[in-house]
Amino acid sequence: MEEAIKESKKALRRNEVPIGAVIVKDEKIIARGFNKREKTKNALAHAEIVAINKACNKLKDWRLEDCTIYVTLEPCPMCAGAILNARIKRIVYGAKDKTANDELLEKILQSNRLNHKCELVQTSEYEKDCSALLTNFFKEKRNSSKK
Amino acid sequence: MEEAIKESKKALRRNEVPIGAVIVKDEKIIARGFNKREKTKNALAHAEIVAINKACNKLKDWRLEDCTIYVTLEPCPMCAGAILNARIKRIVYGAKDKTANDELLEKILQSNRLNHKCELVQTSEYEKDCSALLTNFFKEKRNSSKK
Repeated sequence: MEEAIKESKKALRRNEVPIGAVIVKDEKIIARGFNKREKTKNALAHAEIVAINKACNKLKDWRLEDCTIYVTLEPCPMCAGAILNARIKRIVYGAKDKTANDELLEKILQSNRLNHKCELVQTSEYEKDCSALLTNFFKEKRNSSKK
Repeated sequence: MEEAIKESKKALRRNEVPIGAVIVKDEKIIARGFNKREKTKNALAHAEIVAINKACNKLKDWRLEDCTIYVTLEPCPMCAGAILNARIKRIVYGAKDKTANDELLEKILQSNRLNHKCELVQTSEYEKDCSALLTNFFKEKRNSSKK
């Protein structure tokens, strides 16, 4: 998760919402990604999608079996769906998405349409750090827009 | 929708699950996509994602406002989430996804986390054609694997 936080800081330095992800297989990081929606002007450029894209290219396989994705923020429906489509085994995330009060993440992961189950873990150890990165980013955004 | 069906046939000719999509703005097609998961060995390469990626690149904007996406099959959670993230206004789809008995598409579209609503329409006119394309594809797959 520390590596995912490093990724989120890359987004922060580029004035993007600071979210980072890494994909791990056999205890090695095989792909990294950070949010670059504004720079790329692309709605798909979430940290998880960037990392999944790289991991598929690296393994030359659309199935990322036996992989874990570490991401600093609870995945949105697009990313949760992509994680399932890629058959990723486990999600470890840092901060809860405060706009997500609909349990959509859980509902998407519980769906049995793909005959694939993905485990979901929130790490309490890094929750505060991941959450603070986002809170501070939006606080600064609000302050600078007031000026 | 006829253009989305044309796209799905491009997938079919490449031995991919035949799903196609087009994105329309101001009555013009701005992007096209067909499923190429097997060829690209990429879990993200659904028709809708391919089309959204192209549309964002074309408009140089992650917001595809006032756009309609036509897709031959009911979108999966990843694609539904991507359509929302891209602020697409309307989805018109052909065939129902028979593996989807969980109403996830509706739940994802009803989510108010993005403060964006996307209209969902199933077109009865093309339902049979879109559905037959898929059914025949999987029937042939099964027959050829029996041989």
